[in-house]
Amino acid sequence: MFEDAELGHTVAKDDYAKRNAELRQALLAAQYELKGNPKFPVIVLIGGVEGGGRGETVNALTSWMDPRHIEVNGIGEPSDEERERPRLWRFWRALPRSGKIGIFFGSWYTWPIVNSVMEEKQPHWSRLEARINEVNRFERMLADEGALILKFWFHLSKKAQRKRLKELKKDPKTRWRVTTRDEAYFKRYDRFREVSERVLRDTSHAHAPWIVVEGTDWRYRELAVAGELLDALRHRLATPHAPSAVPATPDPSPGVDTERTVLSELDLTQKLSRKAYDQALERWQGKLALLTRHKRFRKHSVVVVFEGNDAAGKGGAIRRLATAVDSRMMRIHAVAAPTDEERAHPYLWRFWRNLPRRGQMAVFDRSWYGRVLVERVEGFCSMWDWQRAYGEINDFEEEMAGHGIVVIKFWLAISKAEQLRRFKEREAIPFKQFKITDEDWRNRKKWSQYSDAVCDMVSHTSTTHAPWTLIEANNKYHARIRVLQTVHDSIVRALE
Amino acid sequence: MFEDAELGHTVAKDDYAKRNAELRQALLAAQYELKGNPKFPVIVLIGGVEGGGRGETVNALTSWMDPRHIEVNGIGEPSDEERERPRLWRFWRALPRSGKIGIFFGSWYTWPIVNSVMEEKQPHWSRLEARINEVNRFERMLADEGALILKFWFHLSKKAQRKRLKELKKDPKTRWRVTTRDEAYFKRYDRFREVSERVLRDTSHAHAPWIVVEGTDWRYRELAVAGELLDALRHRLATPHAPSAVPATPDPSPGVDTERTVLSELDLTQKLSRKAYDQALERWQGKLALLTRHKRFRKHSVVVVFEGNDAAGKGGAIRRLATAVDSRMMRIHAVAAPTDEERAHPYLWRFWRNLPRRGQMAVFDRSWYGRVLVERVEGFCSMWDWQRAYGEINDFEEEMAGHGIVVIKFWLAISKAEQLRRFKEREAIPFKQFKITDEDWRNRKKWSQYSDAVCDMVSHTSTTHAPWTLIEANNKYHARIRVLQTVHDSIVRALE
Repeated sequence: MFEDAELGHTVAKDDYAKRNAELRQALLAAQYELKGNPKFPVIVLIGGVEGGGRGETVNALTSWMDPRHIEVNGIGEPSDEERERPRLWRFWRALPRSGKIGIFFGSWYTWPIVNSVMEEKQPHWSRLEARINEVNRFERMLADEGALILKFWFHLSKKAQRKRLKELKKDPKTRWRVTTRDEAYFKRYDRFREVSERVLRDTSHAHAPWIVVEGTDWRYRELAVAGELLDALRHRLATPHAPSAVPATPDPSPGVDTERTVLSELDLTQKLSRKAYDQALERWQGKLALLTRHKRFRKHSVVVVFEGNDAAGKGGAIRRLATAVDSRMMRIHAVAAPTDEERAHPYLWRFWRNLPRRGQMAVFDRSWYGRVLVERVEGFCSMWDWQRAYGEINDFEEEMAGHGIVVIKFWLAISKAEQLRRFKEREAIPFKQFKITDEDWRNRKKWSQYSDAVCDMVSHTSTTHAPWTLIEANNKYHARIRVLQTVHDSIVRALE
Repeated sequence: MFEDAELGHTVAKDDYAKRNAELRQALLAAQYELKGNPKFPVIVLIGGVEGGGRGETVNALTSWMDPRHIEVNGIGEPSDEERERPRLWRFWRALPRSGKIGIFFGSWYTWPIVNSVMEEKQPHWSRLEARINEVNRFERMLADEGALILKFWFHLSKKAQRKRLKELKKDPKTRWRVTTRDEAYFKRYDRFREVSERVLRDTSHAHAPWIVVEGTDWRYRELAVAGELLDALRHRLATPHAPSAVPATPDPSPGVDTERTVLSELDLTQKLSRKAYDQALERWQGKLALLTRHKRFRKHSVVVVFEGNDAAGKGGAIRRLATAVDSRMMRIHAVAAPTDEERAHPYLWRFWRNLPRRGQMAVFDRSWYGRVLVERVEGFCSMWDWQRAYGEINDFEEEMAGHGIVVIKFWLAISKAEQLRRFKEREAIPFKQFKITDEDWRNRKKWSQYSDAVCDMVSHTSTTHAPWTLIEANNKYHARIRVLQTVHDSIVRALE
């Protein structure tokens, strides 16, 4: 894969001057077209060997284009903030919005490769494969969400790298740039090459290709990267993006015996008296308060998702949970229609950004499941979009669970009759009127479509590491206590 | 993921009779529409727990539809023939052609799951992940090639499976069906559930979804599978297939300094005298003859790919190789335009089917690289198709290498002037006239496009386990000896 990048490519000074002038103008024009009609974000990854000219090329790109619309992300050691979140969090937070170009100088490839190269004995291939798998799923999702992804790998032959390091060390002005780490890397050149060939081979796709660039001549590498970026921008600006492949089936669920479902099997008559509720509330809130102050809790974080029928009592249940937990440890995210900022990113972005630090609890009042519920039923996204969401959501929650986050998901279920009663009550009582809108009545008309979507959602996303808990919520007291209990028990299991 | 499939779904006798009649008629109609205008193959996988009714459902499907256009593949232990090929070979050979329905009763999921469940200690998760990765790439390729893929998982709760095994054992007519292996599986029910949840979660995609079906009631499961198959067929017959997503860039290669390439760097003046050639030929043919008769050779197999410019001397080089090897051990595959049969399968199918058994050598005179050479240059496939081919080809060759196949790939390069000389010679000499056609002259006009395609091919598919060897072929003697030497040395390295 590196054959072409060891030929000693160079570009003559005159050729460079001419081509450079053309490229700058064309790149600026493309950048403005992208910005003026922002349909997609551009993600450019820069990787490769030490001394291959990665930094210089990034600087050239930003000086050629309008730097206000390019974000350069240097990815070094993760910060404390980042360490307390799942692996991909730091990359999610750095994703460019539509119309912008995000350059990752170092990326989600950096640490998997570095770790594999620097490990004492043989590279741990199966661990590397797990990372490759994770990265492939991540990039596939980004591409499906419309991102243009280009990945540049700056290569130097062993001989060229040796020469480069020597030159840098000779000149007092550049000597500082050669660190002991660079020397250590160079000693492992062969393994580095072996590992990176494997990674490049298994992560190069038509939707996110690696382009290997020889790093010896600065004129060559600048023209190579700028030219490729220009071609890709022009191609994509001229081609309508069609990420909507055809799913195999319009509805991946058996669809027979729709009378008996996970919802219909709930016993909605379960109730708790006011007195029993008061006692239980005090008990479980007390237990939760103690638990979340436990020293071992500081190593974990908790994500609680509340979904449910309109008027099922999500707000009330969340308030009872909030009372039990120190408010500095908890943040509640009420999820409504996405903002412009959020719409300019992949749909999971606004949830990733709100993942809690260690020792914290994040409560989502509605969540990423909107895509397979309201967006599916109301046709806000394509069939392809909501069907691929099941897998993307499972990946998201697997990232969380893998990081030690306790993921708790509630569906609060009420009967159609109970919903009607509550709607009418809300309309009648002045201080509750803000809680009922025309939209609630419209949604109610699609009761059975929403029920189907809920059952499919449970079938596809209830997993061992992030199970759904269906709560019978016709009786609010019963529902609230069940919620508190479940949160408590899930945390206890995690701390054990 | 199994919640819905543990509710005790049943279908009443009357409902079944009614729905069954409708479904049969509709399925037959859909099957004939598929057959009449065969644009895609249908791949149906049947998996799940023992006693979940997999066999009965397959029998029902074949009796409902026209069984002449359904192929049922039972996948048990691999045969000797299959064991001597890479893991996926047995599935490739069983793939249905366009217009047909192929049912896999047991599939590429069977052994990864069984092995993970039956291993003594903990399941080997990272090995399972590697298999999942392989399967995901395989199915993605099938879907990109146009296949409709549906995967049914028949589930029984632990209680239901216990009951089912008991019932089967009680009845003398069905007692034989419960094997000791079934009992062993049941003892590991919990682990089976854990492993299969993981597999289903990580391999369910919009383009190849898992549909989990409760296996207790035969009426329910038959209607569920038949209904889902019908929906999927109708959906796909009505929707134009658009697997052509937009690649990130029109050409994933630097594209600067096109004067200096892996081809231009070849020293085409290298030559061998007739006398030196005769001596070397005898020497290397002798060494190869000995080597391929070596007892250790029987554990390996060899795949040799010949690509090159028109008139570069592939045929002559192949003949010299053939002379050295026992003809019973070698098969030469001349690859021309695909036949109808081949066109009705994914493009790699015709190469997979010709992979050699152990101790055998398969020589391909032109190969799977046609997709990124002639098909790319002549526009026989879309930009998306040839770009995704790089990864698919790497996967293919990785399967081979992982199985111990020695993969040797030659590009025989001649200069444009030498080609002209040979073309004219062929036209002038009567017994060589069959070797020169109008197409050769047409291809020659696209010399530089073909050169670009060759360089890109080498950049993307020359890997440690399947490297390209570029052969300077202006002098035929030199080229032939280099070929023999390279084949010999590659085999020696593998046997070491």
